[in-house]
Formats: sequence, C-alpha cells, structure tokens
Amino acid sequence: TEIALAPKEASFDRLKLEDLLKRRFFYDQSFAIYGGVTGLYDFGPMGCALKANMLQEWRKHFILEEGMLEVDCTSLTPEPVLKASGHVDRFADWMVKDTKNGECFRADHLIKNSIEKLLNDKKTSAETKKDCEDVLARLEGFDNNDMHQVITRFGFKSPITGNDLTEPIAFNLMFPTQIGPTGDFKAFLRPETAQGIFVNFKRLLEFNQGKLPFAAAQIGLGFRNEISPRQGLIRVREFTMCEIEHFVDPEDKRLPKFAKVANEKLVLFSACNQMDGEPAKELAIGEAVKAKTVANETLGYYMARCQQYLLKVGIDPRRLRFRQHLSNEMAHYAQDCWDAEILTSYGWIECVGNADRACYDLQQHYKATNVKLIAEKKLEKPTEVNVVEAQANMALLGKSFKKDAKKIQGALAALTNEEVEQMEAELKENKLFKLTVDNNDFNITPDLVNIKKYSKTLHVQEITPSVIEPSYGIGRVMYSLLEHSFRQREGDEQRTFLAFPPLVAPIKCSILPISANEKLVPIIEKVKEELASYELSYKLDDSSGSIGRRYARTDEIGIPFGITVDFDSETLPHTVTVRHAESMTQIRLEVSELGRLIGDLCKNRQTWQDAQQKYPKFETANE
Amino acid sequence: TEIALAPKEASFDRLKLEDLLKRRFFYDQSFAIYGGVTGLYDFGPMGCALKANMLQEWRKHFILEEGMLEVDCTSLTPEPVLKASGHVDRFADWMVKDTKNGECFRADHLIKNSIEKLLNDKKTSAETKKDCEDVLARLEGFDNNDMHQVITRFGFKSPITGNDLTEPIAFNLMFPTQIGPTGDFKAFLRPETAQGIFVNFKRLLEFNQGKLPFAAAQIGLGFRNEISPRQGLIRVREFTMCEIEHFVDPEDKRLPKFAKVANEKLVLFSACNQMDGEPAKELAIGEAVKAKTVANETLGYYMARCQQYLLKVGIDPRRLRFRQHLSNEMAHYAQDCWDAEILTSYGWIECVGNADRACYDLQQHYKATNVKLIAEKKLEKPTEVNVVEAQANMALLGKSFKKDAKKIQGALAALTNEEVEQMEAELKENKLFKLTVDNNDFNITPDLVNIKKYSKTLHVQEITPSVIEPSYGIGRVMYSLLEHSFRQREGDEQRTFLAFPPLVAPIKCSILPISANEKLVPIIEKVKEELASYELSYKLDDSSGSIGRRYARTDEIGIPFGITVDFDSETLPHTVTVRHAESMTQIRLEVSELGRLIGDLCKNRQTWQDAQQKYPKFETANE
Repeated sequence: TEIALAPKEASFDRLKLEDLLKRRFFYDQSFAIYGGVTGLYDFGPMGCALKANMLQEWRKHFILEEGMLEVDCTSLTPEPVLKASGHVDRFADWMVKDTKNGECFRADHLIKNSIEKLLNDKKTSAETKKDCEDVLARLEGFDNNDMHQVITRFGFKSPITGNDLTEPIAFNLMFPTQIGPTGDFKAFLRPETAQGIFVNFKRLLEFNQGKLPFAAAQIGLGFRNEISPRQGLIRVREFTMCEIEHFVDPEDKRLPKFAKVANEKLVLFSACNQMDGEPAKELAIGEAVKAKTVANETLGYYMARCQQYLLKVGIDPRRLRFRQHLSNEMAHYAQDCWDAEILTSYGWIECVGNADRACYDLQQHYKATNVKLIAEKKLEKPTEVNVVEAQANMALLGKSFKKDAKKIQGALAALTNEEVEQMEAELKENKLFKLTVDNNDFNITPDLVNIKKYSKTLHVQEITPSVIEPSYGIGRVMYSLLEHSFRQREGDEQRTFLAFPPLVAPIKCSILPISANEKLVPIIEKVKEELASYELSYKLDDSSGSIGRRYARTDEIGIPFGITVDFDSETLPHTVTVRHAESMTQIRLEVSELGRLIGDLCKNRQTWQDAQQKYPKFETANE
Repeated sequence: TEIALAPKEASFDRLKLEDLLKRRFFYDQSFAIYGGVTGLYDFGPMGCALKANMLQEWRKHFILEEGMLEVDCTSLTPEPVLKASGHVDRFADWMVKDTKNGECFRADHLIKNSIEKLLNDKKTSAETKKDCEDVLARLEGFDNNDMHQVITRFGFKSPITGNDLTEPIAFNLMFPTQIGPTGDFKAFLRPETAQGIFVNFKRLLEFNQGKLPFAAAQIGLGFRNEISPRQGLIRVREFTMCEIEHFVDPEDKRLPKFAKVANEKLVLFSACNQMDGEPAKELAIGEAVKAKTVANETLGYYMARCQQYLLKVGIDPRRLRFRQHLSNEMAHYAQDCWDAEILTSYGWIECVGNADRACYDLQQHYKATNVKLIAEKKLEKPTEVNVVEAQANMALLGKSFKKDAKKIQGALAALTNEEVEQMEAELKENKLFKLTVDNNDFNITPDLVNIKKYSKTLHVQEITPSVIEPSYGIGRVMYSLLEHSFRQREGDEQRTFLAFPPLVAPIKCSILPISANEKLVPIIEKVKEELASYELSYKLDDSSGSIGRRYARTDEIGIPFGITVDFDSETLPHTVTVRHAESMTQIRLEVSELGRLIGDLCKNRQTWQDAQQKYPKFETANE
C-alpha cells in the first residue's frame, strides 16, 4: 500500500516545530497585536529569506533553464475577465450557517469532522459506521443537495453552539472590490495568476515570433477568501503562486526534451489505482506516458521537472507522490491532471497541480472579447479549400440601412460556407433573407449581396493552442519543507534543528569566535570579507554563550555551516573550522578557501562528503 | 537655476519610446483585450526581467549589505490597523464630479490643467494671468474650500462635457474589501507596505536581541485607487514598493557608518531654497547634516545610499535631485522629508521618499492595541525614582465589585504617581474617590486600597523608537530609467535603442551567428554552455536577417553585449567577437574567457574600457 512508501516519522512533534517557527520568527499570524486574522500570515526574516531562495531556484529551474517568458500582471482583475474564465459563476464553496448566531462553516469540512467524530465514538453502531464510511468515500463528489441530505439525516449541528444549521449556500471565494471612484466598476483580487497570462496570449505569441510551443510563467500573489481557514500555511487567504502556461498544438503534445527525463522515476497514484483500491506505484515517466497513464509527453515532462524541483529544495522523496484526478474531480474541459502531493502531519497535501486544460481558457476569452486567441500552424502541404462568400453591395446597403450598413457587412462576411449557401437558397426561393445582427432583423434582398464561390490554397491553419498548466503553491511546499527538515538530536530531544539544503537555507553560515579576545577580530573581519565577496549571507554570533549553545542556536534556524575562529586561527595562513550542522562533523581549511567551498556547497556543485575528503577532519569535544 | 543642472534632451520623443516599449512588450495596459483598465499595467518578459533585476540589486544594496531584517506581510489589512495609522480618515484626494453625467476628476489636477489652459490663452488678461500664477503657486496647500472657491471664481467646468462641477468631495484612495464569509469584517488592500513592519515591531526587536538601532525592509505590492490616473507607469493603482523602516533612539540619530558617505555630493533643493526662489545646490551630505539642512545622520545616510542605488541602476545623475518637503506638505508628526525626484518628460517626478516620521506610527498602534511598542534603553547611570502605587485589597474588592474587581485592580495599577497622590488626598478628605473605568464610575473607599510610596533604581528607560523611512516606488524609478536609457543613433534617428547598465539589463547578451552554416553550430553550443555556467541570460538570434539588422533588433531591447560567431571562430582555440551595444565597438576573445568577462561587466567589476584594453579591437564594416 501507499503506507509502505511513506516513512514512519513517529517522533515528529508539530507543537515543537510550531514553537520554533514562532520563536525564531519564520512566520506568524498577521496583525497579531490586533488579535490576528485567520488565514493570513507574515513572514519574518528567516521565513522571508527561505521563501525568496525557493522562488529564486524556481525562477532558475523553470524560467531560465527552459527559456520561458516571464510576465508580471496585476492582482486587481475586472469582473468580465473572471466571468469569462468561469470564476464568477463557479469559484465557490458550499457553506452552512449556524441558524442562531450566523457563524459560518465550510459544509464539506463540517461533514468530514462530524463523521470522523461519529467514527471515533464507541457508542456508534456498526451500521452507522458503515454509513459514515460510505459518506466519507463519496464526499469529494457531493453537491449541495447531497450535503444537505447528509446533514439532515445524521442531524449534524454547529460544532460550537450545537445550534441547527442552514442549507448549504454557495459562497464565492474571490475578494470583491471596485476600481475607480464611481463604484460601478466591479473587480476582484485574482484567485490565480493564470488569467493574466491568457489575456496576454496574443502579445506573448508575437514575442515568440508566432511560434508554438512556448511557455509563459508568472510568480505572484493569489487571493482566496476561505470560509474558515485552519491548518496554518496550508490553507491561507493570500499566497504566492508560481504558474506556467505551456501553449502547444492540441494535436501534437510531444516534446523533444522529454527524452531527457523519460527515465526519471515517479510515484504515481493513478485514477485506476484509486478506484481499484490499489496503492501508488513507482514508474519511469517515459513508461507512464507510453502506457497512456499520463496523457502526453508535455504533461509528463513537467511532472518530472516538478519532482526535480521539489527534491532540490529539500522535500523528502519518500513523502512525495503524484495523484491523478478522478474524472469527477476534474473540470469538464480538463484532459488530465496530476497533483504533486506531499505527506505532512496534516496528511497528503496538494502542493502542485499539473493539468492539461485543453483550449478552454483561450476560447472563453475569445468568446468574451471577440479577439482571436489563436496560432497559425503551417500545413504540411498546401490545401485547396472551397470558399463561399457573401459580399455586400455597399452602395445599395448604405442607401437601405444607413448607419447599420457597416454592421450588416460585417455579419455577412462572418457567415460560414453553409450559412451562405442557405442564404443563397432562400434568396432564390423567396427573394428575401432575414439576417439577425445583435438581436435585430434585417431584410436582405438579392440585389444587396453578391455570392462568390471560388477555391483557394491554404498554407497555414488557425488553431487554438492547448495549455499545460503546472501551478505551484509555494507556501504549501515551504510548510512541507519545514516539516521534512525538522530534526531532533539523537539522545537530546529538546535540541531540535532544521536541516535545510544549503541551496535554500535562509542564512548560509554562522561565524562563531571561540572567545571575545581582541586578537581574533582581524581574522573575523577577513572571514566576513571572504564570504561577502562570494555573496554568501552570514550571521555573526559573538555573544558570550558556550560554543555548544551557540551551535544549537544557529542549528535551530537551519544555518547549514558554522565557521569557528579559534586561537589556532592566528597562525599564518589563517585557518578556521567549518562545521556541517546536520552531521556535526568539522573540517579545517584556510580562510581564503572559504568562499569557494561554501559557495560550491550552496550551489550543489560539491557535497559535504566531497569537502570531507579534501580537507582534514577537525575533532572537538565541544558538543 | 535648477534648469542649469538639468540637461537638454531636446530630441527625446516620448511617442517613439512608448512605441518601442509596447512593440517589444516591456509593458502594456492590463486586460487590453477587454478594453484595458487605466492605472493598471502588465509587465512582459523584458519589463519583468528589468524589474526583477532592479529588485535584486535593491535587495543586495540595502538588505544584504546593511544587514536589514526583511519581512513579507499581507496586502489584505483589517480596518482597525489602517484606522490607527490614519489612512481610513485621511488617505484621500479631493474629487469633483460632473453634475450631469457623474464623471469624476481629481480637483487639484483639474484646477492645474484649467489654469494652465488660461495661461496659454492669448485672450487672458494680464490681471487674470497674475491671479492664475498665484493660484498655481499655492495649489499644493489648498483645502477643499480653497479649491471650491477657485473653481467657482474662475467658472471652471468639466473639461470633457463643459458641464458644471460639484463641490470637492473627499474620496478615500484605499481599495475596500472584506475578509471571510460574514461580510462584517472590513478590510482594505494596503496603501503602503510600512504598516506591516510596524505591527511586527515587537517580534523584530526581539529578533534583533532587543537592540537599537535596526532596520527592517519589505518589498511588495501597494494599492491606491487613484481617481483618474494618467501618465503611464508614473501614476498607477497597483505597484511594487520597497520600504525600509529604520528604528532608532529618538535622542540619538547619529550613525557610525555615516562617515563612509559623508563626502558624497547630492543635489539638494531645500525648503529654504524653494521659498526664496533659489535653485537647488550641490552639497556633500556631511556638510548638509552639519548645517542642519538635513535633520540627522541617519536620514542623510539613507539619502546618500539612495543616490548610489539610483545611479547604479542607470538614472542620469544630471536628472536627479533631492527636494525637501515644505512644512505644509509634511505630515504633522514628520520631522524632515526629502524626496528623490527624477526629471522625466513629465517633469520632476517623486520616486523615493526619505522621511523622519518620528515615533508616530508605533505610538498609534500602541494606542489602538494597548501592546507596548517600545525598546529599552540602557541608562548611562542607574537612576533613583520615586514610586507612588495604589495596591488593591483584592479580598474586599472582590466582595464589593464581584466581576468588576479585576478591571478595577488594573485601573488602579495604571494610575500615574500624580493620580495616586490626588486619590490619596481625596480619600483622606472625603473617604471616597470616584474611579472611572470604561465610562463606569466606581466608589473607592480607603479600605479598598493601600497606598505605597518607595523609591527604586532604574537601569533602563523605556523609549518609543523614531523611524526613518526610505520608500521606493520601483515602477517610477523604472519608467525614469527607460527614459534616461533611450537613445537614437547619430545620423539615423529611426534607429532607437536602450542603453541599460549591464547590471539591470533584462538579457545580458545576444548570440548572433554570421551564417546558418552547420559548421558554426558546435561553436554556438560552446558559447551557450559557457554563458549558462556563469548564469548569464542570452538570446540566440539565428534568423536570416543581416547582422546589422539583427544588431539593431537586440540593441532595441537593451541587450548590452552581442556575441558574433563567424568563420574565423572555427580556428582553435575558438574565438568570437563581443560588441558593446552602446558604443558599437568590438573586441575579439576566446570562448572560454566569455563567461568571466561578461559576468564581470554585469557585476560592475570591470568596465568596457578595461575590456578594450585587455583584448584586441575587432573592426567591421557591418554597421
């Protein structure tokens, strides 16, 4: 089962981690001195640097290495844009209210919690328990009526007051506002960054010289007005997203560079596995695409690149899987969707969505704006097509319809071959054709139009590109990373620390003079200069605590390397010791070699094992 | 006059620049296919990279080099926070409406434009012109009544319809929204990032081990619902800000590192100069602080660092000045404020504010939350103070006042020495004291309190830190940079280009093979690898255009260096030419030296002049 793939981290203590994160200001609830706001978090210096490093690596791994077009669009979004995308009508959760005090609950969460309470209650009958399990299994697919029925049947009440609950009401999760002073320009804060890319499709395609495929990417804020967010960073109302929209020919989703990742092994939890109650399976992505388990090469490529990114920033590979959406979970237009899910103390958390959204979004914006969002595809061989056209006789049309003439001309030009042929037939039979434009009927007589039939040679075909969309919730990845990096020293469980990969560690090294003796000061200055010249961040801890206590304090905030300046450092050429926090092993080297070594370690150009082989081991009794 | 300090860029053509920026997708109006929204802009790949590079340099120049504490707070801000900061009541512009169609205008802009129209009208009498000039000079300090009076006196109408205008109405510039499903949790999008730092002051001070001074910084979005934004990137509704809050002892705003910048010369346009009609003057910042023209060293330090940053990213030093706020421009609590203003085709634009905001913000949030936002300052010598305390007799108090006892105890403890002494006197005279708590009166009798008088030794003093706030509008700096970087080739004015400093250029080099010959492909691959290993961005242009046309195309988007692979490149060791776009001069060097050279040029470790001395010149007739 999938449990077998997941590790046992029995000793993980979330309260201890949360205490550390709050105490050392990785993040905290926003506006805490005002009582705090649920679902909003502020990042302190440590969290902010960790997040910035994760984003920088994301930019390098995707935007730079893949040559993507990065854009930066506004959060404020006019209503018509989100009407077209479907968010105004469908981006909602079902909510029930306490009938007496009006308190709101997300209906599915309330049912889940109430059901779990029943299941844990010894007094619940075996029959009810079976019923409960059946509800849990189907809950994801429930609509408002299903949920209302369950709440009524089980008699669920408000978990806080015990009062009755209303029927489920749809609550749109977008934050509403308005633009400008008149109050009639409705807008929302964007619930995702993707729409900003779609509405700029034409310009991006131009920028790419009209060629498909290409990918655009955006790093920015998303906003969702969650009904009653819990679970810390996992469910928040304002968050940083990284989204990619890869535009591709819908009939050819192969990708040459897929070959580079085809042997990469992923843990796949396919829809079939889920339906059949089978566990997730490890499989090379090349095999999965060949077997059509994953829909196409482009989607498979991004899943493999997603895994590479997550492992690089420090996600535990044993706690990562890709779960395919069941058909009832997917939007009607989506062709395939695989979530990268990470196992945390909250269970498996969806952190990245990798979806083939077909051409839905571009088509919706085209319908709403009448701006063609298409690409031209060169035909393999030129094709002969028959054209049937209705050309307006503008002189007569102007006389008959005055200012409407232009509109009628446009409507005639937009008719399909079939429509023109139908018109031709009617004109022949009745000498009259009723043309409807913007809900107005116009009487077209034979003298007003010339019907032309000819054939022409097409060299290109107009296509609406399909979109493959990887979408990253950086806060969720970051929280998972914090759990996966959290360690306790063996034999001293009070001594907790964070073992970040040096690549993303908020601060790369600490500088710890063994004593406050003046003689060490010039050496400390040399160390600082050496690190600064390699743009490596450091934290000098020259407080009076014992070296062991100072190590513990820097380990706690995930500083991977500790540089100790001792009295042996005075000898020329100056040397210092470098301690690897995770393993607590130390080596000794010259100050002039520090920058290159730590720089290499932080860019994954060298491992600590490499460094240990190159430099002499330093033994100490300090810890 | 200041005109003498400003350059003559007579040939600057804003339409040509705007055409380039739109055509090559630096940025464009947001939601253009939906008709666009004024005051909202999307950045395309070029603008996005330029902005990202400017922000990265800002982070390096300020946060890393100065060891600032970076935070990342939410845009969504509850109403009470912005009530305390004064934004709910005062963050507004005066607006007049067309009485017939309701169209809105910012009152001061309408007056300014209408007055300027009158001044440019030959038919306007000399007397009226004098009146007009007087209004213009005083406009900045006008309140709603002043503006209404001017509009009425001159008979100003809507510039669009000619209809009458309403009296000026205050329009709050914050975007309103609400958090959660109930609709009664009012919130706004933050108008500045600063408040997020102030509300986290306690945690940040703790993070800094309780020590002053320290600086916190934030890079993030700000939102202002401008009434009718014009002027492109200069006045927008959603924008990226970089803000620093430097917390300092209000009685000692000296800064040791000020010495490092004291000789830096700045163009200062002091309040006195402005009042006396004198021009701005160039002065070393050390002199300016000594003469008290600039209020203190900390403020002066940030002004000098501001200039360094602006010049590094490419602002023309001849078009930069620091203008001091006049006393009627400054908030009542501010002690001094100097805007970095940059000259553009829109005139002098405020791009950075450098303000000494005293302790206003921390005090306001303290008042609103009752959470002490203070630091402890070690006293030079311990001080003896007399304490007069009213201690509650809790047993009796509980009996008399039940649930109110706790509240009364707290109120008694909060009394000042003087208040306790007054109570003591009243208790002695009347055996009764009326204590008011939360608008309720309580009768305190002598048996309920013990009055204690003693002296104690204080080692620390509680102080509310002052705040020095540099605040950068990155979009405005970026727009100014685009104007200052815009060039036309001498003798060919159609050939325009952008001469960015390599440090911020969106793409660092182009790779231009002289021919499509297969033989050059492996050399191109070597060049790409060499650049990638130094993390240098590049754009390969292997299209069939002439080399001159391809140079022009890459110059246009500000790529500073062009690498040409020609048939001489084949000879071992492979060599290529590097062309400096701004000067169009070329040198020739080995492929294996490329990464280091261009890396150094982009990090300002070498200049093009240095490179020209080191490598042989390459002459070509191609341009």
